[in-house]
Amino acid sequence: MFQSRDQILKAYQDYLACLNARDWESLPRFVAEDVTRNGVRLGLSGYRALLEGDVRAIPDLAFLPSHLACDPPLLAARLVFDCTPVGGLFGLPVNGRRVRFTENVFYEYRAGRIAQVWSVIDQAAIEAQL
Amino acid sequence: MFQSRDQILKAYQDYLACLNARDWESLPRFVAEDVTRNGVRLGLSGYRALLEGDVRAIPDLAFLPSHLACDPPLLAARLVFDCTPVGGLFGLPVNGRRVRFTENVFYEYRAGRIAQVWSVIDQAAIEAQL
Repeated sequence: MFQSRDQILKAYQDYLACLNARDWESLPRFVAEDVTRNGVRLGLSGYRALLEGDVRAIPDLAFLPSHLACDPPLLAARLVFDCTPVGGLFGLPVNGRRVRFTENVFYEYRAGRIAQVWSVIDQAAIEAQL
Repeated sequence: MFQSRDQILKAYQDYLACLNARDWESLPRFVAEDVTRNGVRLGLSGYRALLEGDVRAIPDLAFLPSHLACDPPLLAARLVFDCTPVGGLFGLPVNGRRVRFTENVFYEYRAGRIAQVWSVIDQAAIEAQL
């Protein structure tokens, strides 16, 4: 399957819309069955469980990129979160406070789907806001 | 000044070589006078001071990318560090232990130089290794 820059950018925007709609049934359109994250093979079910856990912890979580760099088969995104976690987050007692933090993340696309993810989340920024 | 993907990739590789050689005198070839990092205007002198501080804290620091996504004027890099900080690092008592951590970072190039930087360093990974 051909993966041009425009096709990957479109697939990624559709993936973010899927997450923002909590449309977990559509996730297999965007994420490969054997997806890995930071070198750990989560598989699609583990990846979905991770996202569902994020949304339970942060009901108002919205995935919004401030920067995108697409260089097939890679896409890198900077995501800016401005949200209100209900309890703990990354082991930190956020407890309903509004926090802003970022994630810089690389995705490798294969056959039109996300096959590998390498993410760094700015947990230190959250700590600094508590 | 034209900034093609290949030109930015070459400029970035030369920038990393400059850092790895501690060739601070050459830094103005790669970094703009009014450079910002995570929204803070450091300027070239502040940016150089930050790098010199990193190298004082981590004498064996080597800048090696595992992933590069270049989409002009942006370049995103995942840097993998495997190093031995001599004292504290990000407020953590590393004290001579060997640690591995990553940085996912976006650069915006302007006229062939790095003008803006948005970085996330995986400090939580360092904590987990102590």
